[in-house]
Amino acid sequence: MSVTAAKGFQAAGIAAGIKENGNPDLALVVNTGPRRGAAGVFTSNRVKAAPVLWSEQVLKAGELTAVVLNSGGANACTGPKGFQDTHATAEKVAEVLNIGAGEVAVASTGLIGVLLPMDKLLPGVEKAAQELSEHGGEKAAIAIKTTDTVHKTSVVTQDGWTVGGMAKGAGMLAPGLATMLVVLTTDADLDSATLDKALRAATRTTFDRVDSDGCMSTNDTVLLLASGASGISPSYDAFAAAVRTVCDDLGQQLIRDAEGASKDIKVEVINAATEDDAVEVGRSIARNNLLKCAIHGEDPNWGRVLSAIGTTEAAFEPDRLNVAINGVWVCKNGSVGEDRANVDMRYREVHIVADLAAGAETATIWTNDLTADYVHENSAYSS
Amino acid sequence: MSVTAAKGFQAAGIAAGIKENGNPDLALVVNTGPRRGAAGVFTSNRVKAAPVLWSEQVLKAGELTAVVLNSGGANACTGPKGFQDTHATAEKVAEVLNIGAGEVAVASTGLIGVLLPMDKLLPGVEKAAQELSEHGGEKAAIAIKTTDTVHKTSVVTQDGWTVGGMAKGAGMLAPGLATMLVVLTTDADLDSATLDKALRAATRTTFDRVDSDGCMSTNDTVLLLASGASGISPSYDAFAAAVRTVCDDLGQQLIRDAEGASKDIKVEVINAATEDDAVEVGRSIARNNLLKCAIHGEDPNWGRVLSAIGTTEAAFEPDRLNVAINGVWVCKNGSVGEDRANVDMRYREVHIVADLAAGAETATIWTNDLTADYVHENSAYSS
Repeated sequence: MSVTAAKGFQAAGIAAGIKENGNPDLALVVNTGPRRGAAGVFTSNRVKAAPVLWSEQVLKAGELTAVVLNSGGANACTGPKGFQDTHATAEKVAEVLNIGAGEVAVASTGLIGVLLPMDKLLPGVEKAAQELSEHGGEKAAIAIKTTDTVHKTSVVTQDGWTVGGMAKGAGMLAPGLATMLVVLTTDADLDSATLDKALRAATRTTFDRVDSDGCMSTNDTVLLLASGASGISPSYDAFAAAVRTVCDDLGQQLIRDAEGASKDIKVEVINAATEDDAVEVGRSIARNNLLKCAIHGEDPNWGRVLSAIGTTEAAFEPDRLNVAINGVWVCKNGSVGEDRANVDMRYREVHIVADLAAGAETATIWTNDLTADYVHENSAYSS
Repeated sequence: MSVTAAKGFQAAGIAAGIKENGNPDLALVVNTGPRRGAAGVFTSNRVKAAPVLWSEQVLKAGELTAVVLNSGGANACTGPKGFQDTHATAEKVAEVLNIGAGEVAVASTGLIGVLLPMDKLLPGVEKAAQELSEHGGEKAAIAIKTTDTVHKTSVVTQDGWTVGGMAKGAGMLAPGLATMLVVLTTDADLDSATLDKALRAATRTTFDRVDSDGCMSTNDTVLLLASGASGISPSYDAFAAAVRTVCDDLGQQLIRDAEGASKDIKVEVINAATEDDAVEVGRSIARNNLLKCAIHGEDPNWGRVLSAIGTTEAAFEPDRLNVAINGVWVCKNGSVGEDRANVDMRYREVHIVADLAAGAETATIWTNDLTADYVHENSAYSS
């Protein structure tokens, strides 16, 4: 269902030949209206890919009619030619749909530092336009995969309106945003300011807290398009909750498909003085390679959790810290707690609770273990 | 030679039985004078091991007569009992040497969160004291190894005075300081303020810029003891240069022995607006897991370098960045540069130059690649 679950959207996913292996690599999502509302959130990496620079620009009007996405090349660090290529891609979409290029967002994913094969991409846009369909959401989700082993979609429907979406991402997953492309659609009848507010609120506590490998992408893009085709204007709270649910679901799918991972690790920081403290501590734990290796080895090595907490600026007293791993409080008051032999780590999900004993705020960061498979996959990716 | 290269020092290294495998695990270094000057630099991790808390305290007087070091247990996150054990260790050293406990620094390394076997450690102190010798430096260096495959020592002698030292460290290597224990000795006749100044200046640009795996230890300790036994008072500049040379040499030995590493990576940031910018960018590159995997695969993946630079706050313009890998400028003006096929990555040392084109400052950070062996070693360490 994906991006075509909501009324007023068509999509397509095709093989344009950008990927040498012939897999699908080009997706097109079109809002058929009646409204063209849109909001977007992009990577905070200061080295931004050409499609990010373009899409940020066109989104300033708060409206989009189409999104074109390609895998097989990130079009990042490609200089003026890379930006020209993004512009030409948007112009091509505008031409075949008979709209303006300023209504077209572009998103790209794949290797950094390589120019896109425009001789394949531009004919691909024509082909995709011919295959646009109200049932094309699944194919679009498949076409944006890179090292993803599965495609990721999510849909929430209630009271006659729908929020649906697709995501890709398996490596370079880190905050602000997790590395990924996401397109969400809705047929709710809402203005762009409301879309923007709901999208930012949702990504702040979902994608922004997915930190698989600490590496922030140059291409992260999350777009939300609203057609208004349901004719229903839900309350902000109901709509924001639906957007958050879809983002959370897609974020979880990203973590579960992270490159080389054998464990999904939920790092829950509790009793922090501020939410910022909780996030800082959660990220520090989630990025500690030694801990991530220990979790891979099913070793409840809480000393590495404390060591990670100690590198932060968050408010805490070392001798009041508590840590639970899978429900066993292995560290109490900064020292040895319950018997670590009681920690059962056989399952894929691992739950770490870090109690800062410094307040009442909380945050949850999701990460993965560090494995030989991750090393293998990422030492061979560009070859 | 190690810590006994300088006149006025004795040392010993013995097997006290702290390590279950019977390997040497206790070292003692004694300053026989005539002076007892000392300086120290410790981990900036806020979760500090008991011996760090103790040694910081005793060093406030600027004098030390002895340092006792153990491997086989970090005595970190061990609560009040852990601190009592450190205190008891210093008292035991004081007793056997007929000095005060306030003249004894303690350093520990090994697993976090485990109490030391004091029934073995305290008799070990007596045994070590009996074996103290002016030729004991090598044995002391061997006794502080954990996962180190070789022991690390360095000596500089000039104009009748000497600076020598020993180091341990192979994992949890990260800034502020790199994770390690280091004891330096000198027979130069200098006051404690001079020792402190020279030591801080040296560690700031050596150990603090070794970042093997981004994980900061709870136990990092660098001590400098001065006996004055040469009767020579070198100039500050000559002495500081010698201390820096020994620290740099030991830091290089740490990198070359880092757990599981197959490449030593020199990250040189040039043309930064400030030295802080250069260090921030260098660390960001050095900590990027995806890049470290690529280097392991001998893949000159400069896109991951730019992606890492982009996450920093340093002054730069994305389209003015240049990156060289092993002498080939693979990225020019933020885009594709010379042919990456020309990069020869067959050798252990890899040299990355990141040109920020924003000023005249520079900094060099050393790191290692990320390998399946690192994962293996650190997923099994505590078992």
